[in-house]
Amino acid sequence: MVERMGISVAVTGASGYAGGELLRLLAGHPDFEVRRVTGASSAGTPLVQSQPHLVGSPGASALTLEATDPARLAEADLVFLALPHGQSAAIAAELPDSTVVVDLGADFRLADPDAWASYYGGTHAGSWPYGLPELPGQRAALQGARRIAAPGCYPTSVALGLAPLLAAGLVEPDDVVVVAASGTSGAGRAPKQNLLGSEVMGAVSAYSAGGVHRHTPEMEQSLSAAAGTRVTLGFTPLLAPMARGILATTTARLRPGATAAQLRAALATAYDSEPFVHLLPEGSWPSTASTLGSNSAHVQVAADEHVGRAVVTVALDNLCKGAAGQAVQCANLAFGLPETTGLSALGVAP
Amino acid sequence: MVERMGISVAVTGASGYAGGELLRLLAGHPDFEVRRVTGASSAGTPLVQSQPHLVGSPGASALTLEATDPARLAEADLVFLALPHGQSAAIAAELPDSTVVVDLGADFRLADPDAWASYYGGTHAGSWPYGLPELPGQRAALQGARRIAAPGCYPTSVALGLAPLLAAGLVEPDDVVVVAASGTSGAGRAPKQNLLGSEVMGAVSAYSAGGVHRHTPEMEQSLSAAAGTRVTLGFTPLLAPMARGILATTTARLRPGATAAQLRAALATAYDSEPFVHLLPEGSWPSTASTLGSNSAHVQVAADEHVGRAVVTVALDNLCKGAAGQAVQCANLAFGLPETTGLSALGVAP
Amino acid sequence: MVERMGISVAVTGASGYAGGELLRLLAGHPDFEVRRVTGASSAGTPLVQSQPHLVGSPGASALTLEATDPARLAEADLVFLALPHGQSAAIAAELPDSTVVVDLGADFRLADPDAWASYYGGTHAGSWPYGLPELPGQRAALQGARRIAAPGCYPTSVALGLAPLLAAGLVEPDDVVVVAASGTSGAGRAPKQNLLGSEVMGAVSAYSAGGVHRHTPEMEQSLSAAAGTRVTLGFTPLLAPMARGILATTTARLRPGATAAQLRAALATAYDSEPFVHLLPEGSWPSTASTLGSNSAHVQVAADEHVGRAVVTVALDNLCKGAAGQAVQCANLAFGLPETTGLSALGVAP
Amino acid sequence: MVERMGISVAVTGASGYAGGELLRLLAGHPDFEVRRVTGASSAGTPLVQSQPHLVGSPGASALTLEATDPARLAEADLVFLALPHGQSAAIAAELPDSTVVVDLGADFRLADPDAWASYYGGTHAGSWPYGLPELPGQRAALQGARRIAAPGCYPTSVALGLAPLLAAGLVEPDDVVVVAASGTSGAGRAPKQNLLGSEVMGAVSAYSAGGVHRHTPEMEQSLSAAAGTRVTLGFTPLLAPMARGILATTTARLRPGATAAQLRAALATAYDSEPFVHLLPEGSWPSTASTLGSNSAHVQVAADEHVGRAVVTVALDNLCKGAAGQAVQCANLAFGLPETTGLSALGVAP
Repeated sequence: MVERMGISVAVTGASGYAGGELLRLLAGHPDFEVRRVTGASSAGTPLVQSQPHLVGSPGASALTLEATDPARLAEADLVFLALPHGQSAAIAAELPDSTVVVDLGADFRLADPDAWASYYGGTHAGSWPYGLPELPGQRAALQGARRIAAPGCYPTSVALGLAPLLAAGLVEPDDVVVVAASGTSGAGRAPKQNLLGSEVMGAVSAYSAGGVHRHTPEMEQSLSAAAGTRVTLGFTPLLAPMARGILATTTARLRPGATAAQLRAALATAYDSEPFVHLLPEGSWPSTASTLGSNSAHVQVAADEHVGRAVVTVALDNLCKGAAGQAVQCANLAFGLPETTGLSALGVAP
Repeated sequence: MVERMGISVAVTGASGYAGGELLRLLAGHPDFEVRRVTGASSAGTPLVQSQPHLVGSPGASALTLEATDPARLAEADLVFLALPHGQSAAIAAELPDSTVVVDLGADFRLADPDAWASYYGGTHAGSWPYGLPELPGQRAALQGARRIAAPGCYPTSVALGLAPLLAAGLVEPDDVVVVAASGTSGAGRAPKQNLLGSEVMGAVSAYSAGGVHRHTPEMEQSLSAAAGTRVTLGFTPLLAPMARGILATTTARLRPGATAAQLRAALATAYDSEPFVHLLPEGSWPSTASTLGSNSAHVQVAADEHVGRAVVTVALDNLCKGAAGQAVQCANLAFGLPETTGLSALGVAP
Repeated sequence: MVERMGISVAVTGASGYAGGELLRLLAGHPDFEVRRVTGASSAGTPLVQSQPHLVGSPGASALTLEATDPARLAEADLVFLALPHGQSAAIAAELPDSTVVVDLGADFRLADPDAWASYYGGTHAGSWPYGLPELPGQRAALQGARRIAAPGCYPTSVALGLAPLLAAGLVEPDDVVVVAASGTSGAGRAPKQNLLGSEVMGAVSAYSAGGVHRHTPEMEQSLSAAAGTRVTLGFTPLLAPMARGILATTTARLRPGATAAQLRAALATAYDSEPFVHLLPEGSWPSTASTLGSNSAHVQVAADEHVGRAVVTVALDNLCKGAAGQAVQCANLAFGLPETTGLSALGVAP
Repeated sequence: MVERMGISVAVTGASGYAGGELLRLLAGHPDFEVRRVTGASSAGTPLVQSQPHLVGSPGASALTLEATDPARLAEADLVFLALPHGQSAAIAAELPDSTVVVDLGADFRLADPDAWASYYGGTHAGSWPYGLPELPGQRAALQGARRIAAPGCYPTSVALGLAPLLAAGLVEPDDVVVVAASGTSGAGRAPKQNLLGSEVMGAVSAYSAGGVHRHTPEMEQSLSAAAGTRVTLGFTPLLAPMARGILATTTARLRPGATAAQLRAALATAYDSEPFVHLLPEGSWPSTASTLGSNSAHVQVAADEHVGRAVVTVALDNLCKGAAGQAVQCANLAFGLPETTGLSALGVAP
């Protein structure tokens, strides 16, 4: 047996959906050992009562949810913060610099204080290395990092699709149009009437349209970095009748002379050696179902000559590659482990 | 009791989804009496075997599916053609000019033979009055008409949302971007592996992206008429895990100075007196569930100042306002009946 | 035009699911006019904000939710109570005897105070005529009634399937086994984590198994009346991933010599002249989808010779024939209107 | 690194649902290497075209579907047969005795030729060791076996729930009543109208009721072995609107004096040391969602004193513990590998 690193892990927000997915992945991770789980409202109850899908895990079955106490989190080598935005900064401030902290919330994603102020409000906590290893040059920034801001689910799907086309100069950076449909788990586990099964089953609905969604500046930040110039986009999110998955459709005006072959080549170059991002064969379009429960993103592209736009579609699991899986992928990089440790690239389908 | 017109009706394609919805609506229509139903593959079998939701209708329960014989269809005052495209023209040619014929297929929707040739191929059958009464000036063209081309489901959702904004000169006619999610019934009832419940449940997927979907020229035709100039658009359809419903997101660049209030006013002016198209209150976004089984379309609009685009979202039931309900609405106009006869504006929700 | 009775109606619990379905049906009812809607938590807000599927109804769009004030309810000719159990009795006590009151809650369904005490607890409010017209002799009890207890959704599905077999002496009254799957709307609209779309989509789960569900004594009461002897049953409810619908499977031991033909004949005799309950053709099995949004129940039966049990399956829409539709059907009887007024027997399918 | 056995594997029926799940599991199995995949109708096409969820697997991406040729299958150390019933026997006959063959079909499950004849018809192929290791004494029969008949999905769920209660003499062996709801993948991938997403979404329906379902004798065989006497049961299957999962409700009459505590103790004794079968804590009921994509079964039991019946509910994933996962578990036993190799006990939820 290989010598395994016994890395102790703490997970906050363990009673939520991202927390539940993190714990599912960590239960199968050979090097990370979950020692502590916290969940404000459920403190004192067995973890499996909140997360019955973990009942088959001897480790998870032995855990009890605690209140979130930074002093006790500090005992861990690795801390995942899966909390509503605005709660991570105070906790992170009390953790040793040597602790690896991966924040699944928004607090440390944006470098621009003005963007934070206008979309989230309140004080800007600062920014950490952005945990999307497949972006140009980003992997190096994550290897050995002690603080990592895991990306949002929508921004991951949009950045993976469009960044290579912008970096290759094949599409215009302004007037990008994004419409992305998400499963309901992206809206969290707090009970709300509009998220009841009775309301969402059989329904596709729009929300936060008109450029007000908080993921907009995060998308623009990633894409601007890839383009080397300011990218602006309009984003319309949709709620779809499924628990998991995002299907993002991103269109951008083609640069003069850009061809479908060039679009395809740019994505192939970016992803052919990536373990988790896959450009689909021509004629095959992404479906969220093919990525369910996996850390994969499926990408396809077309050139709409009729209106002169590139159309990129990306499917991924919002809780896995869009949240928990990506966080584990980043933690692997932080500890120098093989990037795919404990993660699957295969969807549970049908 | 008012004197009722005993209008005899024949429905072709009665074993399909649009046919089944037509028969559900017609069973509750006080003036239309279905005398004949045809369905190629199921000829000779009881209608309710193919359409068990009609078992509670004495009339429908007494009907047997027949082969499609124009000579027998000619006995009806009103014929609905719910057939795959390419099959309507030959049948229509054998029906008397005095028969009211409403075609739910694509054959007679496009005025431009070149558009037909490039998107459908084969011979162009010609064009009939376009059955979308809520379009500017269109209602008059349908009153008393003997031949009507009922619109496609996607084009209905896009035209209802954008036409008033184009007519009011508030948005640019070029570079319109449409992403619309449809329920699976829009793909028809012929068994295909990619439409199996196991494949579509829990899945949102893209298809026919890149400007190749056949509804593209139909959308452009309606919108160009409303704009008074050539409109071009890029259309990406999505398949969503629900049986019915379309949620269309259409964005167009704002004309200089156009405001959110102007966008809203243009839609309010267009629809405040319409029985089936409803501009939602501010802050409320359309959901397909609220229109299920109804002939309604729900509309909402926003101005995305950040990128200078109008964002219109429209929800409707693809089988009702997007197909069978619209066809009945048009038939009511053709016979001079109240336009809402036999139709409901209220969705079955939750 | 026929002379219509202008019957004024008040609906309590109008912001819930049963209330929303009641208002959808009442908007299309030619004799009932909704003048007042109440909803505790949403008092003061427009009805359509809670029930967006009603936005197409001029009448419903003009209504504002009020607090529930018996004095104001008393102004109505007809009052529907769609409240959690335990709340109806106090309100009903303040309404004039001349007012027709239909309670969709459980308060007045059980005749046996002990059954009430053991399953619901607290004081027994008494019992009203049971609003299931298709039960033997029950229709007469509802014609002209001023107080009606509308049945529960599960009990409706079980009684319609088994009562005729018990009345005909074809099955044994003891050891009846019921397993019924319900859509999530049966659990109400109050936000709960276990009812979130993310939890219920893709999931069938059991709950309240082991004979503890409150609908058990109500089922036994109806079936005992039909059998003329004490009927006991074991009931296991399931939650299914759909908003609406109940599929009930009820099995009972066959009396010696009872045949499949006799089972079928008993159901045919009971329902062949009923407008809303339909025995399906042999070889066809009930599906909840075929009854969606309708007041119908679809019934099928088989004799399992292998174990000597009758197997009856019944599909209906828990919010319509299982709640609001049944309530309107009963109100029609109370006012001497045609029983089917304002109701459809056809499901919205697919 | 541990020394790994390089066991070569062939999978027939690789283009179906069970085949796709097998390949997902095998891609993550450290000792089994898939060298050959066959699929009659898709022979010559890339595997990932039929199974897009495998696109992230370098191994699976390199495979092409072949026609099923026993001579080439014989090159493998391990052959999984995932074929419609009736096709396995002829192929198995041509494979060396030394090859480990796991049949996911029904051909070799039944020991009684009469049961085969009456439920399947045609010649009885014989019987192989039954691949449900958690049944009393069954594990030993599978260790080192060269031929294994993997159980059906429904029989697995029923046997796991009731066998321990029968073995402990707590319930009567006659008049067992089973109602089980399955996701649509259990009906296979061949396109059929009644399995279209449009037909199954929003619908629970019954089928094959009245004791005619082919899994009935298989259930009785397992349960009779556990009871040590003849067990008879009535089985009603339901189709539920989800791709995967079975929720089985099994009730049996309690033996005099049998208590809820005894029922619970019998299941705890049977499963406390099992890696894949889990008795849930009291008050928690099984949900198929908690087992999605895992090889787990979740079990709960109650004593319905009211009618004197035990009620056992079991949730599992019909494609994993109900088919492919169980097959891999059995193959691990055949090769003397740790039984859990390559399998997860944790569901993908929500």
